[in-house]
Parts: sequence; structure tokens; C-alpha cells
Amino acid sequence: MKIYFAGSIRGGRDDAALYAEIIKLLANYGEVLTEHIGLKDLSSLGEERTPQDIYERDMDWLLGADVLVAEVTTTSLGVGYEIGEAVAVGKRIMCLYREQEGKKLSAMIDGNPELKVVRYEEVKELKNVFDSFFNK
Amino acid sequence: MKIYFAGSIRGGRDDAALYAEIIKLLANYGEVLTEHIGLKDLSSLGEERTPQDIYERDMDWLLGADVLVAEVTTTSLGVGYEIGEAVAVGKRIMCLYREQEGKKLSAMIDGNPELKVVRYEEVKELKNVFDSFFNK
Repeated sequence: MKIYFAGSIRGGRDDAALYAEIIKLLANYGEVLTEHIGLKDLSSLGEERTPQDIYERDMDWLLGADVLVAEVTTTSLGVGYEIGEAVAVGKRIMCLYREQEGKKLSAMIDGNPELKVVRYEEVKELKNVFDSFFNK
Repeated sequence: MKIYFAGSIRGGRDDAALYAEIIKLLANYGEVLTEHIGLKDLSSLGEERTPQDIYERDMDWLLGADVLVAEVTTTSLGVGYEIGEAVAVGKRIMCLYREQEGKKLSAMIDGNPELKVVRYEEVKELKNVFDSFFNK
């Protein structure tokens, strides 16, 4: 089971520690291709590679993955892009969202029948969610 | 010529007035399907429709459009999603971006050979850009 985990980098790193926790949990279900998303040293300026290198590597990973798990609370253009590409090729997709006061999740995600949106508050709630999603 | 213009709604409305200016300019080249993106009364809570209604209408418009013009400076999950879907179906795409100090455009957009990224500072620079893009 190859898992592509998507979280915000250049959109902001407020949730970096949370991404690391989710990645750790996901590693129980398969190989997480994008472990760097949780690194605390990765700033919102992103990796020191050319944008072309990052795009090509990430698209290879995404298209080769069995599932996409996206944390969508911190708004990110790249995460949105990846979800759009993944829907178009028929990947299984789960989006994780923490409700924020005065904010609403994008209708392109929230109203989308091609993906599953899970609302949660703490990472510990996700074990049962992942057990069910990965049929474990 | 049907033009789908994409800009941030639930990601934040800081650029709403700018979107209205761009939509006005784009109307010289074809029918802009998404004029509501520029409305100053449209808040970051979005339209008063169900997310499902918004998703279905916007995807119909996007798939029926000849081109996608996306303003990507204000980070938006929905705009990223729309670009991902549009790339997957081979639409012509132009992304408009204003450089921001201490920020970087997503590598999924900046490093993407399937779309054209135009960096600009003021809307008046876009007339020549659009003339060339729309072959006018």
C-alpha cells in the first residue's frame, strides 16, 4: 500500500507537527511516500530544489500511489492541485479537516462526491477512521 | 470563447477588487462564466448554496470552458483543485501571480509544464498578456 500524504508547505507550516503525527499513524497502513511534509525543518519556502524537480517527483509519487490522504485545514494551492489531479485519474482520496471558526472548507472539496471528507479535532480520532479506510 | 476565471473565495477575499478588474478586462476576449468571483458582497464564507450545488455548477462551467485563467496569489484550495482538474483534461491554462515578500508560489504550479505562469504587479500589465494569450 503506497500512501501519498498531502499537507501545506508554501501555503503555511502552522500544522507541520500535526502532519508528522498523521504520517506516523499512516505508516502503520503502508509506505508514506511524502514523509518530508512533516519535517519541522521544512519551512514555507519549501525544498531547495527547482520547482520543476519538485513537480515531477511529486506527480510521479501521486500517480504511483494507491491512495491520497490530504490534510486540508491549512489552505494550500498545491494540495488542492494534487486532489484535482487525483480525482481526475480516479484515485481513492480521503481529506482530513478540522473545523475553524469563521472559515469554511472549499466547496470544491466539501461538495465533491469523488472524495471522502473526514472532520476531526485530534489525531487520536484518526486511528478508527484509517482502520476502516484501509480495511484493516 | 468561454473563460473560466478562478480566484480565492473561502481562502480569503483580500484580492476581490483585483479579481473584479481582471474579469472586466477578460470580458473583452469572451464570456466570463464566473463573474461572481469579483463581487464585493461575496465573503469568504462563500455563496449561500450547498457545497454540492457549487461543486456541480463550477465543474460544469470548468469542463465547458475554452480556457482557465486563475489568479493564484491568495492561496486557495479550490483554485488549486480547479487547476488540477483542468490540467488533467488538457485545458489551456494561464496562472496570474504577484510576487509576495517571504512567500513562494506552489511548486505544483510554478514547476508545471502544462500551464503558463505570468508574474505581474498591476492589472494594466495584463492587457498585452491577454492579447497574446487569446491571439487577438
